[in-house]
Amino acid sequence: MIVIGELINGTRKSIARAIAERDAAYIGGLATSQAEAGASFIDCNPGTIGEDEIRDIQWLIETVQAATDLPISFDTPNCTALQAAFDVYENDATPMINSITAEQERLDEMLEFVAQSGANIVALALSDAGMPASADDRVQTSLGLIDTLTAAGIAPDKIFVDPVISPLSTDATCGCAVLEAVRTIRQQRPDVHITCGLSNISFGLPERKLLNRVFVAQGIAAGMDSAITDPLDAQMMATICAAEALAGRDEWCMNYIQASRDGKLTQ
Amino acid sequence: MIVIGELINGTRKSIARAIAERDAAYIGGLATSQAEAGASFIDCNPGTIGEDEIRDIQWLIETVQAATDLPISFDTPNCTALQAAFDVYENDATPMINSITAEQERLDEMLEFVAQSGANIVALALSDAGMPASADDRVQTSLGLIDTLTAAGIAPDKIFVDPVISPLSTDATCGCAVLEAVRTIRQQRPDVHITCGLSNISFGLPERKLLNRVFVAQGIAAGMDSAITDPLDAQMMATICAAEALAGRDEWCMNYIQASRDGKLTQ
Repeated sequence: MIVIGELINGTRKSIARAIAERDAAYIGGLATSQAEAGASFIDCNPGTIGEDEIRDIQWLIETVQAATDLPISFDTPNCTALQAAFDVYENDATPMINSITAEQERLDEMLEFVAQSGANIVALALSDAGMPASADDRVQTSLGLIDTLTAAGIAPDKIFVDPVISPLSTDATCGCAVLEAVRTIRQQRPDVHITCGLSNISFGLPERKLLNRVFVAQGIAAGMDSAITDPLDAQMMATICAAEALAGRDEWCMNYIQASRDGKLTQ
Repeated sequence: MIVIGELINGTRKSIARAIAERDAAYIGGLATSQAEAGASFIDCNPGTIGEDEIRDIQWLIETVQAATDLPISFDTPNCTALQAAFDVYENDATPMINSITAEQERLDEMLEFVAQSGANIVALALSDAGMPASADDRVQTSLGLIDTLTAAGIAPDKIFVDPVISPLSTDATCGCAVLEAVRTIRQQRPDVHITCGLSNISFGLPERKLLNRVFVAQGIAAGMDSAITDPLDAQMMATICAAEALAGRDEWCMNYIQASRDGKLTQ
Protein backbone atom coordinates (compact mmCIF):
# COMPACT_ATOMS: atom_id res chain seq x y z
CA MET A 1 0.00 0.00 0.00
CA ILE A 2 1.33 3.38 -0.99
CA VAL A 3 0.33 5.83 1.70
CA ILE A 4 0.58 9.53 0.86
CA GLY A 5 0.87 11.24 4.24
CA GLU A 6 -1.56 14.13 4.26
CA LEU A 7 -0.72 15.98 7.46
CA ILE A 8 1.41 18.83 6.11
CA ASN A 9 -1.50 20.78 4.71
CA GLY A 10 -1.76 24.54 5.16
CA THR A 11 -5.54 24.45 5.27
CA ARG A 12 -5.09 23.02 8.78
CA LYS A 13 -4.65 25.79 11.36
CA SER A 14 -1.61 24.35 13.12
CA ILE A 15 0.17 23.89 9.80
CA ALA A 16 -0.75 27.36 8.55
CA ARG A 17 0.75 28.79 11.72
CA ALA A 18 3.90 26.68 11.40
CA ILE A 19 4.33 27.81 7.78
CA ALA A 20 3.76 31.45 8.67
CA GLU A 21 6.27 31.24 11.53
CA ARG A 22 8.73 29.12 9.52
CA ASP A 23 8.63 26.54 12.32
CA ALA A 24 10.97 24.01 10.70
CA ALA A 25 11.13 21.80 13.81
CA TYR A 26 7.37 21.28 13.76
CA ILE A 27 7.09 20.61 10.03
CA GLY A 28 10.21 18.44 9.97
CA GLY A 29 8.88 16.49 12.94
CA LEU A 30 5.61 15.83 11.14
CA ALA A 31 7.57 14.63 8.10
CA THR A 32 9.67 12.17 10.09
CA SER A 33 6.77 10.91 12.19
CA GLN A 34 4.73 10.20 9.05
CA ALA A 35 7.73 8.46 7.49
CA GLU A 36 8.24 6.30 10.57
CA ALA A 37 4.55 5.44 10.64
CA GLY A 38 4.74 3.98 7.13
CA ALA A 39 4.06 6.80 4.65
CA SER A 40 5.56 6.39 1.17
CA PHE A 41 5.20 10.06 0.18
CA ILE A 42 4.96 13.23 2.27
CA ASP A 43 2.33 15.55 0.84
CA CYS A 44 3.09 19.28 1.09
CA ASN A 45 0.22 21.68 0.57
CA PRO A 46 1.07 25.28 1.48
CA GLY A 47 -2.59 26.32 1.52
CA THR A 48 -1.72 29.80 0.30
CA ILE A 49 -1.92 31.55 -3.08
CA GLY A 50 0.13 33.76 -5.38
CA GLU A 51 3.66 34.74 -4.40
CA ASP A 52 3.10 33.40 -0.89
CA GLU A 53 2.36 29.96 -2.26
CA ILE A 54 5.63 29.86 -4.18
CA ARG A 55 7.72 30.91 -1.18
CA ASP A 56 5.76 28.60 1.13
CA ILE A 57 5.94 25.47 -1.00
CA GLN A 58 9.67 25.98 -1.48
CA TRP A 59 10.19 26.39 2.25
CA LEU A 60 8.05 23.29 2.95
CA ILE A 61 10.05 21.20 0.50
CA GLU A 62 13.39 22.37 1.82
CA THR A 63 12.21 21.67 5.36
CA VAL A 64 10.75 18.24 4.63
CA GLN A 65 13.67 17.01 2.55
CA ALA A 66 16.03 18.05 5.32
CA ALA A 67 14.04 15.80 7.66
CA THR A 68 13.41 12.67 5.57
CA ASP A 69 14.57 10.93 2.41
CA LEU A 70 11.01 10.05 1.44
CA PRO A 71 9.75 11.53 -1.81
CA ILE A 72 7.48 14.56 -1.53
CA SER A 73 4.06 15.07 -3.05
CA PHE A 74 3.73 18.64 -4.37
CA ASP A 75 0.13 19.49 -3.59
CA THR A 76 -0.91 22.51 -5.60
CA PRO A 77 -3.11 23.27 -8.61
CA ASN A 78 -0.74 26.08 -9.59
CA CYS A 79 1.76 25.34 -12.34
CA THR A 80 4.11 28.14 -11.32
CA ALA A 81 4.24 26.83 -7.76
CA LEU A 82 4.89 23.34 -9.14
CA GLN A 83 7.86 24.57 -11.12
CA ALA A 84 9.15 26.36 -8.03
CA ALA A 85 8.78 23.10 -6.10
CA PHE A 86 10.92 21.20 -8.60
CA ASP A 87 13.51 24.00 -8.50
CA VAL A 88 14.30 23.29 -4.85
CA TYR A 89 13.61 19.53 -4.71
CA GLU A 90 16.88 17.64 -4.15
CA ASN A 91 15.84 14.16 -2.95
CA ASP A 92 16.78 11.25 -5.19
CA ALA A 93 13.37 9.62 -4.90
CA THR A 94 10.90 10.53 -7.66
CA PRO A 95 8.37 13.06 -6.33
CA MET A 96 4.61 13.18 -6.86
CA ILE A 97 2.52 15.93 -8.44
CA ASN A 98 -0.86 16.25 -6.71
CA SER A 99 -2.80 16.71 -8.95
CA ILE A 100 -3.84 16.94 -12.56
CA THR A 101 -7.50 16.73 -13.62
CA ALA A 102 -9.38 16.19 -16.88
CA GLU A 103 -10.51 19.82 -16.87
CA GLN A 104 -9.32 20.91 -20.30
CA GLU A 105 -7.71 24.23 -19.38
CA ARG A 106 -5.77 22.74 -16.48
CA LEU A 107 -4.79 19.72 -18.53
CA ASP A 108 -3.53 21.90 -21.40
CA GLU A 109 -1.53 24.00 -18.97
CA MET A 110 0.03 21.12 -17.07
CA LEU A 111 0.34 18.07 -19.30
CA GLU A 112 3.64 18.80 -21.01
CA PHE A 113 5.24 19.93 -17.78
CA VAL A 114 4.07 16.82 -15.92
CA ALA A 115 5.29 14.51 -18.67
CA GLN A 116 8.70 16.14 -18.85
CA SER A 117 9.12 16.20 -15.06
CA GLY A 118 9.22 12.41 -14.83
CA ALA A 119 7.25 12.70 -11.60
CA ASN A 120 4.45 10.50 -10.33
CA ILE A 121 1.07 12.12 -10.86
CA VAL A 122 -2.24 12.04 -9.02
CA ALA A 123 -4.89 12.02 -11.76
CA LEU A 124 -8.16 13.27 -10.33
CA ALA A 125 -11.35 12.20 -12.13
CA LEU A 126 -12.72 15.74 -12.40
CA SER A 127 -13.82 16.99 -15.80
CA ASP A 128 -15.32 20.22 -17.08
CA ALA A 129 -18.69 18.61 -16.28
CA GLY A 130 -17.78 19.01 -12.59
CA MET A 131 -17.85 16.43 -9.82
CA PRO A 132 -18.57 12.91 -11.07
CA ALA A 133 -22.03 11.71 -10.05
CA SER A 134 -21.94 7.99 -10.83
CA ALA A 135 -19.53 5.07 -11.01
CA ASP A 136 -19.62 5.35 -14.77
CA ASP A 137 -18.75 9.08 -14.70
CA ARG A 138 -15.73 8.22 -12.59
CA VAL A 139 -14.68 5.36 -14.83
CA GLN A 140 -15.02 7.30 -18.08
CA THR A 141 -13.16 10.37 -16.79
CA SER A 142 -10.44 8.22 -15.21
CA LEU A 143 -9.86 6.07 -18.28
CA GLY A 144 -9.80 9.11 -20.56
CA LEU A 145 -7.32 10.85 -18.27
CA ILE A 146 -5.11 7.76 -18.01
CA ASP A 147 -5.06 7.46 -21.79
CA THR A 148 -4.17 11.14 -22.20
CA LEU A 149 -1.34 10.83 -19.69
CA THR A 150 0.10 7.65 -21.20
CA ALA A 151 -0.19 9.13 -24.70
CA ALA A 152 1.94 12.02 -23.40
CA GLY A 153 4.61 9.50 -22.43
CA ILE A 154 3.86 9.02 -18.74
CA ALA A 155 4.36 5.40 -17.62
CA PRO A 156 1.20 3.75 -16.20
CA ASP A 157 2.96 2.97 -12.92
CA LYS A 158 3.56 6.66 -12.35
CA ILE A 159 -0.16 7.40 -12.58
CA PHE A 160 -2.19 7.45 -9.36
CA VAL A 161 -5.77 7.79 -10.47
CA ASP A 162 -8.19 9.18 -7.86
CA PRO A 163 -11.87 8.47 -8.66
CA VAL A 164 -12.98 11.42 -6.46
CA ILE A 165 -14.82 10.84 -3.22
CA SER A 166 -17.84 12.98 -2.30
CA PRO A 167 -19.14 13.13 1.27
CA LEU A 168 -21.46 10.27 2.15
CA SER A 169 -23.53 12.81 4.09
CA THR A 170 -24.59 14.50 0.86
CA ASP A 171 -24.51 11.50 -1.48
CA ALA A 172 -25.50 8.15 0.01
CA THR A 173 -24.47 6.33 -3.16
CA CYS A 174 -20.93 7.69 -3.22
CA GLY A 175 -19.35 4.78 -1.34
CA CYS A 176 -20.78 2.20 -3.73
CA ALA A 177 -20.05 4.32 -6.79
CA VAL A 178 -16.40 4.82 -5.89
CA LEU A 179 -15.88 1.11 -5.12
CA GLU A 180 -17.51 0.09 -8.39
CA ALA A 181 -15.33 2.60 -10.25
CA VAL A 182 -12.21 1.27 -8.51
CA ARG A 183 -13.08 -2.30 -9.51
CA THR A 184 -13.66 -1.34 -13.14
CA ILE A 185 -10.55 0.82 -13.42
CA ARG A 186 -8.45 -1.94 -11.81
CA GLN A 187 -9.83 -4.43 -14.32
CA GLN A 188 -9.34 -2.24 -17.36
CA ARG A 189 -6.05 -0.61 -16.46
CA PRO A 190 -4.23 -3.12 -14.22
CA ASP A 191 -0.93 -1.22 -14.36
CA VAL A 192 -1.96 2.12 -12.84
CA HIS A 193 -2.14 2.90 -9.15
CA ILE A 194 -5.51 3.79 -7.68
CA THR A 195 -5.59 6.22 -4.78
CA CYS A 196 -8.19 8.28 -2.91
CA GLY A 197 -8.42 11.36 -0.75
CA LEU A 198 -10.05 9.16 1.87
CA SER A 199 -11.30 11.59 4.45
CA ASN A 200 -13.76 13.27 2.09
CA ILE A 201 -16.07 10.28 2.53
CA SER A 202 -16.77 11.14 6.17
CA PHE A 203 -17.15 14.92 5.86
CA GLY A 204 -20.07 16.16 7.97
CA LEU A 205 -20.50 12.88 9.86
CA PRO A 206 -19.47 11.83 13.37
CA GLU A 207 -16.66 9.33 14.10
CA ARG A 208 -14.94 10.23 10.88
CA LYS A 209 -11.92 8.01 11.45
CA LEU A 210 -14.16 4.95 11.75
CA LEU A 211 -15.80 5.67 8.38
CA ASN A 212 -12.43 6.43 6.78
CA ARG A 213 -10.89 3.14 7.83
CA VAL A 214 -13.92 1.04 6.98
CA PHE A 215 -13.87 2.65 3.55
CA VAL A 216 -10.17 2.00 3.02
CA ALA A 217 -10.77 -1.68 3.83
CA GLN A 218 -13.47 -1.80 1.17
CA GLY A 219 -11.37 0.17 -1.30
CA ILE A 220 -8.41 -2.18 -0.95
CA ALA A 221 -10.69 -5.16 -1.61
CA ALA A 222 -11.89 -3.37 -4.75
CA GLY A 223 -8.37 -2.73 -6.03
CA MET A 224 -7.08 0.50 -4.44
CA ASP A 225 -3.35 0.27 -3.75
CA SER A 226 -2.78 3.77 -2.42
CA ALA A 227 -4.47 6.28 -0.15
CA ILE A 228 -4.00 9.91 0.79
CA THR A 229 -4.46 9.68 4.52
CA ASP A 230 -3.07 10.22 8.02
CA PRO A 231 -0.35 7.63 8.71
CA LEU A 232 -0.28 8.64 12.38
CA ASP A 233 -3.78 7.18 12.75
CA ALA A 234 -2.69 3.79 14.13
CA GLN A 235 -6.09 2.20 13.61
CA MET A 236 -6.08 3.32 9.98
CA MET A 237 -2.65 1.79 9.41
CA ALA A 238 -3.66 -1.44 11.20
CA THR A 239 -6.76 -1.64 9.02
CA ILE A 240 -4.66 -1.17 5.87
CA CYS A 241 -2.30 -3.94 7.03
CA ALA A 242 -5.20 -6.35 7.66
CA ALA A 243 -6.93 -5.41 4.40
CA GLU A 244 -3.76 -6.05 2.42
CA ALA A 245 -3.46 -9.51 3.97
CA LEU A 246 -7.11 -10.23 3.18
CA ALA A 247 -6.58 -9.02 -0.40
CA GLY A 248 -3.90 -11.70 -0.84
CA ARG A 249 -1.17 -9.06 -1.18
CA ASP A 250 0.84 -10.21 1.84
CA GLU A 251 2.46 -13.62 1.28
CA TRP A 252 1.87 -15.94 4.23
CA CYS A 253 0.59 -12.85 6.06
CA MET A 254 4.23 -12.11 6.91
CA ASN A 255 3.79 -8.32 7.05
CA TYR A 256 0.67 -8.71 9.12
CA ILE A 257 2.36 -11.05 11.60
CA GLN A 258 5.42 -8.78 11.79
CA ALA A 259 3.21 -5.73 12.38
CA SER A 260 1.53 -7.62 15.20
CA ARG A 261 4.91 -8.50 16.76
CA ASP A 262 5.90 -4.83 16.49
CA GLY A 263 2.76 -3.90 18.42
CA LYS A 264 1.33 -1.95 15.48
CA LEU A 265 -2.00 -3.76 15.35
CA THR A 266 -3.10 -3.34 18.94
CA GLN A 267 -6.14 -1.12 19.10
CA MET B 1 -27.52 -6.30 8.84
CA ILE B 2 -28.75 -9.54 10.31
CA VAL B 3 -26.34 -10.51 13.06
CA ILE B 4 -26.50 -14.09 14.29
CA GLY B 5 -25.02 -13.94 17.80
CA GLU B 6 -22.49 -16.76 18.08
CA LEU B 7 -21.57 -16.75 21.75
CA ILE B 8 -23.72 -19.61 23.06
CA ASN B 9 -21.56 -22.34 21.61
CA GLY B 10 -20.68 -25.44 23.62
CA THR B 11 -17.30 -25.79 21.94
CA ARG B 12 -16.28 -22.81 24.11
CA LYS B 13 -15.15 -23.93 27.56
CA SER B 14 -17.20 -21.46 29.59
CA ILE B 15 -20.35 -22.41 27.68
CA ALA B 16 -19.68 -26.15 27.96
CA ARG B 17 -19.37 -25.70 31.71
CA ALA B 18 -22.56 -23.62 31.91
CA ILE B 19 -24.45 -26.27 29.93
CA ALA B 20 -23.12 -29.10 32.07
CA GLU B 21 -24.04 -27.22 35.26
CA ARG B 22 -27.39 -26.03 33.83
CA ASP B 23 -26.35 -22.47 34.68
CA ALA B 24 -29.44 -20.73 33.32
CA ALA B 25 -28.43 -17.32 34.67
CA TYR B 26 -25.20 -17.34 32.69
CA ILE B 27 -26.73 -18.57 29.42
CA GLY B 28 -29.78 -16.32 29.78
CA GLY B 29 -27.48 -13.38 30.47
CA LEU B 30 -25.51 -14.08 27.30
CA ALA B 31 -28.75 -14.23 25.35
CA THR B 32 -30.01 -10.87 26.62
CA SER B 33 -26.64 -9.15 26.29
CA GLN B 34 -26.35 -10.27 22.66
CA ALA B 35 -29.92 -9.13 22.01
CA GLU B 36 -29.23 -5.71 23.55
CA ALA B 37 -26.04 -5.39 21.51
CA GLY B 38 -27.97 -5.77 18.26
CA ALA B 39 -28.17 -9.48 17.42
CA SER B 40 -31.13 -10.59 15.29
CA PHE B 41 -30.82 -14.30 16.11
CA ILE B 42 -29.29 -16.11 19.10
CA ASP B 43 -27.33 -19.12 17.94
CA CYS B 44 -27.44 -22.16 20.25
CA ASN B 45 -24.86 -24.87 19.69
CA PRO B 46 -24.76 -27.47 22.47
CA GLY B 47 -21.38 -28.80 21.34
CA THR B 48 -22.30 -32.31 22.49
CA ILE B 49 -23.45 -35.46 20.68
CA GLY B 50 -26.05 -38.22 20.92
CA GLU B 51 -28.60 -38.16 23.73
CA ASP B 52 -26.65 -35.40 25.49
CA GLU B 53 -27.04 -33.14 22.48
CA ILE B 54 -30.82 -33.57 22.47
CA ARG B 55 -31.16 -32.79 26.16
CA ASP B 56 -28.66 -29.94 25.93
CA ILE B 57 -30.17 -28.18 22.91
CA GLN B 58 -33.63 -28.39 24.48
CA TRP B 59 -32.32 -26.91 27.72
CA LEU B 60 -30.48 -24.15 25.81
CA ILE B 61 -33.60 -23.24 23.88
CA GLU B 62 -35.81 -23.21 26.94
CA THR B 63 -33.26 -21.06 28.74
CA VAL B 64 -32.71 -18.61 25.90
CA GLN B 65 -36.39 -18.16 25.05
CA ALA B 66 -37.08 -17.45 28.71
CA ALA B 67 -34.53 -14.63 28.51
CA THR B 68 -35.30 -12.99 25.15
CA ASP B 69 -37.97 -12.83 22.46
CA LEU B 70 -35.38 -12.96 19.71
CA PRO B 71 -35.57 -15.97 17.39
CA ILE B 72 -33.08 -18.74 18.02
CA SER B 73 -30.70 -20.35 15.56
CA PHE B 74 -30.57 -24.12 16.12
CA ASP B 75 -26.94 -24.94 15.47
CA THR B 76 -26.57 -28.67 14.94
CA PRO B 77 -25.91 -31.01 12.03
CA ASN B 78 -28.11 -33.66 13.69
CA CYS B 79 -31.66 -33.98 12.39
CA THR B 80 -32.93 -35.64 15.58
CA ALA B 81 -31.57 -32.81 17.70
CA LEU B 82 -33.20 -30.34 15.30
CA GLN B 83 -36.57 -31.97 15.73
CA ALA B 84 -36.09 -31.90 19.49
CA ALA B 85 -35.28 -28.20 19.22
CA PHE B 86 -38.51 -27.45 17.41
CA ASP B 87 -40.42 -29.52 19.99
CA VAL B 88 -39.55 -27.06 22.76
CA TYR B 89 -39.34 -23.81 20.76
CA GLU B 90 -42.18 -21.50 21.77
CA ASN B 91 -41.15 -18.02 20.55
CA ASP B 92 -43.34 -16.43 17.90
CA ALA B 93 -40.39 -15.32 15.80
CA THR B 94 -39.36 -17.71 13.02
CA PRO B 95 -36.23 -19.60 14.08
CA MET B 96 -33.14 -20.45 12.04
CA ILE B 97 -31.67 -23.84 11.21
CA ASN B 98 -27.86 -23.72 11.15
CA SER B 99 -27.13 -25.43 8.79
CA ILE B 100 -27.81 -27.47 5.70
CA THR B 101 -25.10 -28.26 3.13
CA ALA B 102 -25.00 -29.57 -0.42
CA GLU B 103 -23.55 -32.88 0.80
CA GLN B 104 -26.04 -35.30 -0.73
CA GLU B 105 -26.63 -37.56 2.27
CA ARG B 106 -27.22 -34.64 4.65
CA LEU B 107 -29.37 -32.87 2.10
CA ASP B 108 -31.53 -35.95 1.54
CA GLU B 109 -31.94 -36.39 5.27
CA MET B 110 -32.80 -32.77 6.05
CA LEU B 111 -34.46 -31.14 3.05
CA GLU B 112 -38.05 -32.18 3.62
CA PHE B 113 -37.86 -31.43 7.32
CA VAL B 114 -36.35 -27.99 6.69
CA ALA B 115 -38.96 -27.12 4.07
CA GLN B 116 -41.85 -28.20 6.27
CA SER B 117 -40.49 -26.39 9.34
CA GLY B 118 -40.94 -22.97 7.75
CA ALA B 119 -37.67 -21.92 9.43
CA ASN B 120 -34.89 -19.77 8.08
CA ILE B 121 -31.96 -21.86 6.92
CA VAL B 122 -28.21 -21.33 6.77
CA ALA B 123 -27.12 -22.96 3.50
CA LEU B 124 -23.43 -23.77 3.68
CA ALA B 125 -21.56 -24.08 0.36
CA LEU B 126 -20.05 -27.47 1.22
CA SER B 127 -20.49 -30.30 -1.24
CA ASP B 128 -19.35 -33.91 -1.36
CA ALA B 129 -16.21 -32.57 -3.04
CA GLY B 130 -15.27 -31.04 0.35
CA MET B 131 -14.26 -27.48 1.17
CA PRO B 132 -14.63 -25.10 -1.77
CA ALA B 133 -11.24 -24.01 -3.15
CA SER B 134 -12.13 -21.12 -5.46
CA ALA B 135 -14.69 -18.37 -5.89
CA ASP B 136 -16.30 -20.42 -8.64
CA ASP B 137 -16.58 -23.53 -6.42
CA ARG B 138 -18.39 -21.40 -3.86
CA VAL B 139 -20.69 -19.85 -6.44
CA GLN B 140 -21.63 -23.11 -8.12
CA THR B 141 -22.31 -24.94 -4.85
CA SER B 142 -24.24 -21.97 -3.44
CA LEU B 143 -26.42 -21.49 -6.51
CA GLY B 144 -27.15 -25.21 -6.74
CA LEU B 145 -28.08 -25.34 -3.08
CA ILE B 146 -30.29 -22.25 -3.34
CA ASP B 147 -32.09 -23.77 -6.32
CA THR B 148 -32.61 -27.06 -4.47
CA LEU B 149 -34.00 -25.23 -1.44
CA THR B 150 -36.34 -23.00 -3.42
CA ALA B 151 -37.51 -25.99 -5.50
CA ALA B 152 -38.45 -27.62 -2.18
CA GLY B 153 -40.67 -24.62 -1.44
CA ILE B 154 -38.38 -22.54 0.78
CA ALA B 155 -38.74 -18.80 0.13
CA PRO B 156 -35.51 -17.10 -1.02
CA ASP B 157 -35.67 -14.63 1.88
CA LYS B 158 -35.48 -17.51 4.33
CA ILE B 159 -32.21 -18.73 2.82
CA PHE B 160 -28.96 -17.49 4.36
CA VAL B 161 -26.26 -18.77 2.04
CA ASP B 162 -22.76 -19.03 3.57
CA PRO B 163 -19.98 -19.27 0.97
CA VAL B 164 -17.62 -20.92 3.52
CA ILE B 165 -14.60 -19.10 4.85
CA SER B 166 -11.25 -20.91 5.19
CA PRO B 167 -8.47 -19.50 7.35
CA LEU B 168 -6.35 -16.89 5.60
CA SER B 169 -3.34 -18.43 7.34
CA THR B 170 -3.67 -21.59 5.23
CA ASP B 171 -5.18 -20.06 2.07
CA ALA B 172 -4.03 -16.57 1.15
CA THR B 173 -6.61 -16.35 -1.63
CA CYS B 174 -9.58 -17.13 0.58
CA GLY B 175 -10.48 -13.50 1.32
CA CYS B 176 -10.62 -12.56 -2.36
CA ALA B 177 -12.41 -15.78 -3.32
CA VAL B 178 -15.15 -15.33 -0.74
CA LEU B 179 -15.70 -11.68 -1.70
CA GLU B 180 -15.89 -12.54 -5.38
CA ALA B 181 -18.35 -15.34 -4.60
CA VAL B 182 -20.48 -12.97 -2.50
CA ARG B 183 -20.60 -10.44 -5.35
CA THR B 184 -21.62 -13.07 -7.88
CA ILE B 185 -24.24 -14.69 -5.66
CA ARG B 186 -25.69 -11.27 -4.81
CA GLN B 187 -25.92 -10.46 -8.50
CA GLN B 188 -27.47 -13.76 -9.54
CA ARG B 189 -29.79 -14.34 -6.58
CA PRO B 190 -30.66 -10.86 -5.27
CA ASP B 191 -33.40 -12.17 -2.97
CA VAL B 192 -31.39 -14.48 -0.70
CA HIS B 193 -29.45 -13.43 2.36
CA ILE B 194 -25.69 -13.93 2.36
CA THR B 195 -24.01 -14.67 5.68
CA CYS B 196 -20.61 -15.90 6.88
CA GLY B 197 -19.07 -17.57 9.86
CA LEU B 198 -16.69 -14.62 10.05
CA SER B 199 -14.12 -15.67 12.59
CA ASN B 200 -12.81 -18.58 10.49
CA ILE B 201 -10.95 -16.04 8.35
CA SER B 202 -8.56 -15.14 11.17
CA PHE B 203 -7.91 -18.63 12.57
CA GLY B 204 -4.23 -19.06 13.40
CA LEU B 205 -3.37 -15.37 13.08
CA PRO B 206 -2.81 -12.65 15.69
CA GLU B 207 -5.26 -9.78 16.33
CA ARG B 208 -8.14 -11.90 15.12
CA LYS B 209 -10.81 -9.30 15.86
CA LEU B 210 -9.09 -6.78 13.61
CA LEU B 211 -9.09 -9.21 10.68
CA ASN B 212 -12.68 -10.22 11.36
CA ARG B 213 -13.98 -6.67 11.30
CA VAL B 214 -11.94 -5.61 8.27
CA PHE B 215 -13.34 -8.63 6.47
CA VAL B 216 -16.92 -7.87 7.46
CA ALA B 217 -16.49 -4.35 6.05
CA GLN B 218 -15.33 -5.85 2.76
CA GLY B 219 -18.07 -8.48 2.79
CA ILE B 220 -20.80 -5.89 3.28
CA ALA B 221 -19.47 -3.89 0.32
CA ALA B 222 -19.61 -7.10 -1.74
CA GLY B 223 -23.23 -7.83 -0.79
CA MET B 224 -23.25 -9.72 2.52
CA ASP B 225 -26.25 -8.72 4.63
CA SER B 226 -25.72 -11.06 7.55
CA ALA B 227 -22.89 -12.39 9.69
CA ILE B 228 -22.45 -15.04 12.35
CA THR B 229 -20.36 -13.13 14.84
CA ASP B 230 -19.93 -11.76 18.36
CA PRO B 231 -22.33 -8.83 18.87
CA LEU B 232 -20.60 -7.96 22.16
CA ASP B 233 -17.52 -6.94 20.15
CA ALA B 234 -18.26 -3.22 20.07
CA GLN B 235 -15.70 -2.49 17.39
CA MET B 236 -17.22 -5.19 15.18
CA MET B 237 -20.70 -3.70 15.59
CA ALA B 238 -19.39 -0.17 14.94
CA THR B 239 -17.67 -1.42 11.79
CA ILE B 240 -20.89 -3.06 10.61
CA CYS B 241 -22.78 0.18 11.22
CA ALA B 242 -20.25 2.22 9.24
CA ALA B 243 -20.08 -0.35 6.44
CA GLU B 244 -23.87 -0.35 6.09
CA ALA B 245 -23.85 3.44 5.74
CA LEU B 246 -21.07 3.23 3.15
CA ALA B 247 -23.02 0.55 1.27
CA GLY B 248 -25.91 3.00 0.89
CA ARG B 249 -28.16 0.89 3.12
CA ASP B 250 -28.69 3.59 5.76
CA GLU B 251 -30.79 6.47 4.45
CA TRP B 252 -29.22 9.83 5.31
CA CYS B 253 -26.88 7.85 7.57
CA MET B 254 -29.61 8.05 10.21
CA ASN B 255 -28.71 4.77 11.92
CA TYR B 256 -25.05 5.72 11.88
CA ILE B 257 -25.70 9.14 13.40
CA GLN B 258 -28.03 7.63 16.01
CA ALA B 259 -25.44 4.98 16.91
CA SER B 260 -22.91 7.76 17.37
CA ARG B 261 -25.28 9.68 19.65
CA ASP B 262 -25.82 6.49 21.64
CA GLY B 263 -22.06 6.19 22.12
CA LYS B 264 -21.91 2.93 20.19
CA LEU B 265 -19.24 4.02 17.72
CA THR B 266 -16.60 5.23 20.12
CA GLN B 267 -13.57 2.98 19.88
